[in-house]
Amino acid sequence: MDARRKVELFRERPLRPGRPRAPHKGTVVAIGGHEDRVGDKHILRAVADRLGRDGKIVVCTVATAEPQELWKEYEAAFRALGVKHVYRLDIESREDASSERAMRILEGASGVFFTGGDQLKITSQIGDTPTCSRVREIYEQGGVVAGTSAGASVMSETMLVSNSEEESYRIKSALLMAPGLGFASDMLIDQHFSERGRMARLVGAISQNPRVLGVGIDENTALILEHDRSFRVLGAGAVYVVDGSKTTHSNIGEADAEETLSTFGIIVHMLSQGDIFDLSTRTPTAHPPEAMEKVEAAAKRGAAGR
Amino acid sequence: MDARRKVELFRERPLRPGRPRAPHKGTVVAIGGHEDRVGDKHILRAVADRLGRDGKIVVCTVATAEPQELWKEYEAAFRALGVKHVYRLDIESREDASSERAMRILEGASGVFFTGGDQLKITSQIGDTPTCSRVREIYEQGGVVAGTSAGASVMSETMLVSNSEEESYRIKSALLMAPGLGFASDMLIDQHFSERGRMARLVGAISQNPRVLGVGIDENTALILEHDRSFRVLGAGAVYVVDGSKTTHSNIGEADAEETLSTFGIIVHMLSQGDIFDLSTRTPTAHPPEAMEKVEAAAKRGAAGR
Repeated sequence: MDARRKVELFRERPLRPGRPRAPHKGTVVAIGGHEDRVGDKHILRAVADRLGRDGKIVVCTVATAEPQELWKEYEAAFRALGVKHVYRLDIESREDASSERAMRILEGASGVFFTGGDQLKITSQIGDTPTCSRVREIYEQGGVVAGTSAGASVMSETMLVSNSEEESYRIKSALLMAPGLGFASDMLIDQHFSERGRMARLVGAISQNPRVLGVGIDENTALILEHDRSFRVLGAGAVYVVDGSKTTHSNIGEADAEETLSTFGIIVHMLSQGDIFDLSTRTPTAHPPEAMEKVEAAAKRGAAGR
Repeated sequence: MDARRKVELFRERPLRPGRPRAPHKGTVVAIGGHEDRVGDKHILRAVADRLGRDGKIVVCTVATAEPQELWKEYEAAFRALGVKHVYRLDIESREDASSERAMRILEGASGVFFTGGDQLKITSQIGDTPTCSRVREIYEQGGVVAGTSAGASVMSETMLVSNSEEESYRIKSALLMAPGLGFASDMLIDQHFSERGRMARLVGAISQNPRVLGVGIDENTALILEHDRSFRVLGAGAVYVVDGSKTTHSNIGEADAEETLSTFGIIVHMLSQGDIFDLSTRTPTAHPPEAMEKVEAAAKRGAAGR
């Protein structure tokens, strides 16, 4: 299908997260920021290994104020990792995101990577545009949708957007949210987690609605979510799962926005590399770190065989 | 009893936390640092209100590198709060802590306040000295033992001492501990909690031994522990209780010190002002913030009647 028809099609019938019978075949890689881009590139390698033979990745720099610098870093990294086709998608406006040019850049891509920056720039510029639909199509066809920092936050159904961690224990602070792109359903993903001390704001956020699972990702650490059912942890730091389903008390509903949050019975799991979390049962399973290499090798073989 | 005899007595038979039939009548006030000292002085007021009529407080500046500045601030604050006798105990050595002078300063005190600084300076200089015994005696006679920042950490049985929050998710980081003064038994108190993002190190620390309850206190926030049985929260921020008793998995024992911590099933309670935590049953109870004034007024009346 040519780029113009694609734009028309997606304008008429956008692909949206909630539509029934969506295949959900792809992989989400959400990275907590500051992943290694020049050394071992452990996490970017996991992205590259999932692109398949003759893979094509599109690096979307819409979030950042420094698109040129970041693009150079990621281009060099993905090329060093043996990815054959590395393209850049810079978007300055919703018009860009609805353009035939964007469709052409995304044509044949098996992966999309969102850089860090401002998560609201991503969602406000591409939300429900043909680019957004095309990224979902890539995902539903078994591709990889990856993002770091702000790019990880937008994977969530609902994302946190406050810039300041100051007084994060206030009820009002936990309400600074916006809709994400929704690739990771029922999850609220936060990043730079240990490094910026974001536990309070994540607990606050999930206290608003414990249906959603809070997930905090440390820097140079990622979760790899397959088929929207379970995720594995990869990288140097930890991934925190904050489960509010057993909460016995919260003052969210009663108290005013200036009050300090009070909430009892939060369950926290701290996962390190190789650990798996099942999203339907909300249970973690420990895996020895050395098993990870085998899993990654299998993922690479699987992608190559596509 | 005169100061010289007191020194001799305590040298011969130090008062230690573990001794049987200790009365445990006092109050511990552990503050997360940066409590208000010039405005409303909400938390210091709670300390002052518990000193009784004709109360005497001794401000111990052993932890800090700036004893003169801190002493001036606390002297002004406690005097403004109507405390009649405000004394300073500066200790530079274990000899100072074992001196008749220290006993004279502590004579008749109904409260002791440890300033912030380095927790190891407090424990290494006063641990098991006559000053340490005298502080415990004050506590066992129903007095107040308070501390902020490092002064709060030393209230614990075991305290965290790492200075860096970097890579706090590593197993080795959670092992940087030392024995505290032990006024808050079975607790491991951490301070500047949200502000410095210390959840990972506290989870790591209690994973070492879930017998001990992890307690993280935000700045300008305090826990008031009565009779070593339950504590209440006072102040602007939150107090986090990290309970490892239901932990289903931890890699602490298996993995090497460079590994990232993995631990599942931690229970976290986030308490705000007025909330109460029962230490024997490990259960929180929510209290509306306005009830706090009544409780504080009752505490003041109680202390005045002593």
